[in-house]
Amino acid sequence: MAHQISSAQNPLIKTLKSLHLKKGRAETGLFLAEGARLALEAAELDAWPEMLLFSPAALERPRVRDLIKEADARRVRTIETTQTVLGQIAKRDNPQTVIGAYRQRLAPLEALDGALLVALDGIRDPGNLGTIIRTADSVGAGGVILVGETCDPFSVEAVRATMGSLFAVKLARASFEDLVRFKQARGASLVGASLKGERLAQETPLPERVIVFMGNEQSGLNEDMEAACDRLVKLPMRGRADSLNLAVATAVMLYDIWRRRDYDGARA
Amino acid sequence: MAHQISSAQNPLIKTLKSLHLKKGRAETGLFLAEGARLALEAAELDAWPEMLLFSPAALERPRVRDLIKEADARRVRTIETTQTVLGQIAKRDNPQTVIGAYRQRLAPLEALDGALLVALDGIRDPGNLGTIIRTADSVGAGGVILVGETCDPFSVEAVRATMGSLFAVKLARASFEDLVRFKQARGASLVGASLKGERLAQETPLPERVIVFMGNEQSGLNEDMEAACDRLVKLPMRGRADSLNLAVATAVMLYDIWRRRDYDGARA
Repeated sequence: MAHQISSAQNPLIKTLKSLHLKKGRAETGLFLAEGARLALEAAELDAWPEMLLFSPAALERPRVRDLIKEADARRVRTIETTQTVLGQIAKRDNPQTVIGAYRQRLAPLEALDGALLVALDGIRDPGNLGTIIRTADSVGAGGVILVGETCDPFSVEAVRATMGSLFAVKLARASFEDLVRFKQARGASLVGASLKGERLAQETPLPERVIVFMGNEQSGLNEDMEAACDRLVKLPMRGRADSLNLAVATAVMLYDIWRRRDYDGARA
Repeated sequence: MAHQISSAQNPLIKTLKSLHLKKGRAETGLFLAEGARLALEAAELDAWPEMLLFSPAALERPRVRDLIKEADARRVRTIETTQTVLGQIAKRDNPQTVIGAYRQRLAPLEALDGALLVALDGIRDPGNLGTIIRTADSVGAGGVILVGETCDPFSVEAVRATMGSLFAVKLARASFEDLVRFKQARGASLVGASLKGERLAQETPLPERVIVFMGNEQSGLNEDMEAACDRLVKLPMRGRADSLNLAVATAVMLYDIWRRRDYDGARA
């Protein structure tokens, strides 16, 4: 049975509000995911929250009622509260009717597998990171490797941008040295985006396993990283523009590689 | 000679702060562009602001000093102020040292030309819109057509996301009916993104002039719009994901079309 909480002063609500801050996420190991759709999709992937909050409005949808019932049965802490409290947790005027607090999960680097992986160094914008995770999911990448000081994939902004793909894509953190050892052990080809590279879609054959490596928004990959790449690729540019948004550049790289594989595995 | 203003209560500063709101932008016809780099790039494209604000720190860079001098000569209202005031105008803790207030310029639809154009219906997220304008610039598109209730390209968030491409890309507003008349008059092919489409990169030949047509973030193109397209294209998807971020999807479409044209006009 769901507990009822209507006071924003409740310690549990305070904890949930703290998940907007890195400190709160570090202390609890939790993150916020907003919306019934996300909670339903997560459940399909067998990802259950530690806490599931909802307003009475959420109970009008049979699928959400069933979800809450199943969450109860799985000993998830289910909490009925008000839209006002949900708004305070989400820091939004029009919050979703369901918010889950999930345990942060990173995979060990060795658990990542597949013909296509993404590695990101020093990404600063959580919206970019979340969008890249969403794109990685769309092309069926085997995971996303966060190198160096890449921002937190569990921040509210990053989670929002993933649109649920956070639950479907394996994430690992690794040092640059770990990444190089990993790609060597796997026999994977590290393909970096760089202005020094050959032009995208030079139709030279691609190896079986590729790790697309993207650098920081401002400065791209550093020299050591470029030197460690098996191949550098440059995105064609025209006119005045001198760079693309990072999430856009990553997507163009990933879709170009997937195209050369005839969109292997794409849904009909 | 630059005027000096240090009070946030100054009416002119209040006007500039109002440019964060649609009302303020509508009343003045102005928009804010932040950063010396943007102002320099705009000047290269012969776009000069109505007002150019800067803090003393900006004067340490010779190129910025020259810019301000030239702006003065062109009767731009140049204003020296404090970082605090700039922060209040930008609504940022660490504002740039230069902020320009530029006149909003839309082109008439008929002024848009070229082998590749982008049309957007009902886009809601200014970050997406700005990112699409940036990508359109990168692929040398002849302009971006804003159909229906597409959000304001002159909002601070959209301008930030364009990274200066707002000054380089022609923008026009048009009704859906205008868009259809325009594409017929030009003999252009309207290529819409749709789940009902053929898969991207079916290598059927592309017509000489293409307008890529993208719908709203939630619902895509409506049925009338799909019916008006000469061709519908679906982006391949794998796994759990059921859609891409709109700016990402637009970029994948644009780069695929440009690839089939051998990246014609790309910089070396």
